[in-house]
Amino acid sequence: MVWTNSKNTELLERARKVIPNGMYGHEAAHFITPEHPQFFERAKGARVWDADGNEYVDYMCAFGPNLFGYGHDEIDAGAIDQLQRGDTMTGPGPVMVDLAEKFVGMIDHADWALFCKNGTDATTMAMTIARAHTGKRKILLASGVYHGAAPWCVPFKRGVLPEQRAHQIYYTYNDADSLRDAVKEAGDDLAGIFATPFFHEAFTDQHLINPEYAKACREICDEQDALLIVDEVRTGFRLSRDCAWTEVGVKPDLSSWGKAIANGHCLSALLGADKARQAAGEIFVTGSFWFSAAPMAASLKTLDCVARTDYLERTIAAGTRLRAGIDEQAARHGVEIRQTGPVQMPQILFADDPDFRVGSGWTMAALRKGAYLHPWHNMFISAAHHESDVDATLDATEAAFVELKRDWKSLTPTTALMELLETTSS
Amino acid sequence: MVWTNSKNTELLERARKVIPNGMYGHEAAHFITPEHPQFFERAKGARVWDADGNEYVDYMCAFGPNLFGYGHDEIDAGAIDQLQRGDTMTGPGPVMVDLAEKFVGMIDHADWALFCKNGTDATTMAMTIARAHTGKRKILLASGVYHGAAPWCVPFKRGVLPEQRAHQIYYTYNDADSLRDAVKEAGDDLAGIFATPFFHEAFTDQHLINPEYAKACREICDEQDALLIVDEVRTGFRLSRDCAWTEVGVKPDLSSWGKAIANGHCLSALLGADKARQAAGEIFVTGSFWFSAAPMAASLKTLDCVARTDYLERTIAAGTRLRAGIDEQAARHGVEIRQTGPVQMPQILFADDPDFRVGSGWTMAALRKGAYLHPWHNMFISAAHHESDVDATLDATEAAFVELKRDWKSLTPTTALMELLETTSS
Repeated sequence: MVWTNSKNTELLERARKVIPNGMYGHEAAHFITPEHPQFFERAKGARVWDADGNEYVDYMCAFGPNLFGYGHDEIDAGAIDQLQRGDTMTGPGPVMVDLAEKFVGMIDHADWALFCKNGTDATTMAMTIARAHTGKRKILLASGVYHGAAPWCVPFKRGVLPEQRAHQIYYTYNDADSLRDAVKEAGDDLAGIFATPFFHEAFTDQHLINPEYAKACREICDEQDALLIVDEVRTGFRLSRDCAWTEVGVKPDLSSWGKAIANGHCLSALLGADKARQAAGEIFVTGSFWFSAAPMAASLKTLDCVARTDYLERTIAAGTRLRAGIDEQAARHGVEIRQTGPVQMPQILFADDPDFRVGSGWTMAALRKGAYLHPWHNMFISAAHHESDVDATLDATEAAFVELKRDWKSLTPTTALMELLETTSS
Repeated sequence: MVWTNSKNTELLERARKVIPNGMYGHEAAHFITPEHPQFFERAKGARVWDADGNEYVDYMCAFGPNLFGYGHDEIDAGAIDQLQRGDTMTGPGPVMVDLAEKFVGMIDHADWALFCKNGTDATTMAMTIARAHTGKRKILLASGVYHGAAPWCVPFKRGVLPEQRAHQIYYTYNDADSLRDAVKEAGDDLAGIFATPFFHEAFTDQHLINPEYAKACREICDEQDALLIVDEVRTGFRLSRDCAWTEVGVKPDLSSWGKAIANGHCLSALLGADKARQAAGEIFVTGSFWFSAAPMAASLKTLDCVARTDYLERTIAAGTRLRAGIDEQAARHGVEIRQTGPVQMPQILFADDPDFRVGSGWTMAALRKGAYLHPWHNMFISAAHHESDVDATLDATEAAFVELKRDWKSLTPTTALMELLETTSS
């Protein structure tokens, strides 16, 4: 089938009249290339179909929520069954207790759970609990690390006041010395330290965790009675069946979860240790849909799948196959690329590509051949990405390398992306 | 059937181990009475069933989301159909464009829409857009008025820093003079004014809008090029099929919506006028599930129901019948009560009841007879509340007045509520 995007273009024209810029946020396709499909008709397993009916092996997984495959029969049946009994009611369903028990039983550091809707809800609660627990103010954050889109953490600061980010001190991720400098700056006012399980920022190479840094985070929080917060929103259950830092022997006091915990149904969570329970019970947090039962039923099924299937090993196997295949192709075509991060959360960047025109050209070429890749944001592999999907992807990327070399000199950067990046640096 | 709550008690005991205080937020039943059911098994139409199988005519409507009846067949079918095609994907479904067009077509002041998940997401975006649009900082808010649970607006301030609420000035709701004093205080730095369609705060009588105050809000924003933000999260489509202030001739620049716009499916929205479109397109806002298609499909069906049914007139008729019936009962029993607010969003408070022990005793008695009422939070009436439901409720409240008079002297205040109110006043 010939790739077309006329329906997408039509939808975008309508959208621009009733939605600022036609679309906003992390799924705004105009930040990738002007031709990237914005609207999707259907999703199943590892595949998505755009508004024009083009089918793709999808490596964004809805930017994380899809862990077991889109439209997972068992998980969705759990949600629909609960929806038909009762979803958003005057109180939660008993499933809230089942889910909290199951979650706390699976995550070693956790003794309690608070459920919410956005990843940002969970990270914001963590910040507030750290301050309530300690009676102190300073929060340490790794520079350039994403923890959500509220005024206190959003990476693009238009409309945000400096006061909304008061008492936040920034250090360099993975750098224990930089962390210690920030701790000194906090003096006797340290409330908490935020960290992600690994460095998974857009526009840059990914960095796996330096265990010394993780241990320093823990030691400092213990010394100062501050709270260590590991933000698992993007990574949760993709690196481990427990909190990811358990593997380097570090248990946080709080961990924030979202995205994949209900395989695409709207749910996020903050998990905490007993130490922080009292403060968690003293702050006031809520939302209109935080107690809806259907997403909790979906999450219960998702955690079942996490516990009893080999999904993790399969996402790693698929990621390993993809990485090896793309490395081989790039080398054969004489194109220098960098593949970083865990194989199941791949980031592929091109050498000498400061404005991402090469990466964008390559992903656009692969898109036309049926593989949806991203030129500057980490990607995600689900348990529904089978060998055959990866092999189909490699056919697409092989063709994309050929096209890339042919069209190299005519590539141009994406205007909307350039404007966005100017906002960041200013 | 005899009212029992043994299963609820069992669930609460389990919950207290894995959720701080067993429950949190606006649906935490321990703030009503220690015996109020916390967990619900089922909901349909105007009815809910708690974990022990007790059936109630429910006047909380999930604290707002239920507008057309729980488990509304047509709305839920729309959501399920979309879920089975694709919900949380790598981009939104075309339904996002349909929904934005429909919403903007129904709300007179609105030219564009941004969708999100919590009411707080919408109010926070409004604040950020007002600052981005004006380049100014001061936000005026009516004192004691709820706009969400983020640090900048949460009514209980444990863990929140004063800096997180910087450049916020408070005025008295419905009082144009107080508003003008706040405007003076803002000087040449006024970014926006927040208001709710009427005063609908917990623990107190409700006050309908004073048109002079609404007009003053508009005039001041016009004079100073500030943005007028009407927060419709709780009231949306309950007072009007348009933004509620349209009835007093005032159009806001931004309006925040949530709760009922998808009849219980998780969706909120910020609507705006062209004037604010550029700023809305410059701020960065997003969330993992903001672009999920199933809740948008539910909302499209809900807006259909808003446009083509007599739901509004029916909720007003049911509310009028309830108010008249309860007034008659109270008078006959010689009990002084105050029923305030629009009849379809009733608030019932008892005279000389500063700690709400009388109201709590009365609602507890009505609960045992099958009517779920609230002693200090505004209630909600859905289009599924038929005459027969109201009449069944009046049987329950009649019995409750009898019990109340019998037990008056032995009533005690609710401990958790007293602790919460101490937090507010401190």
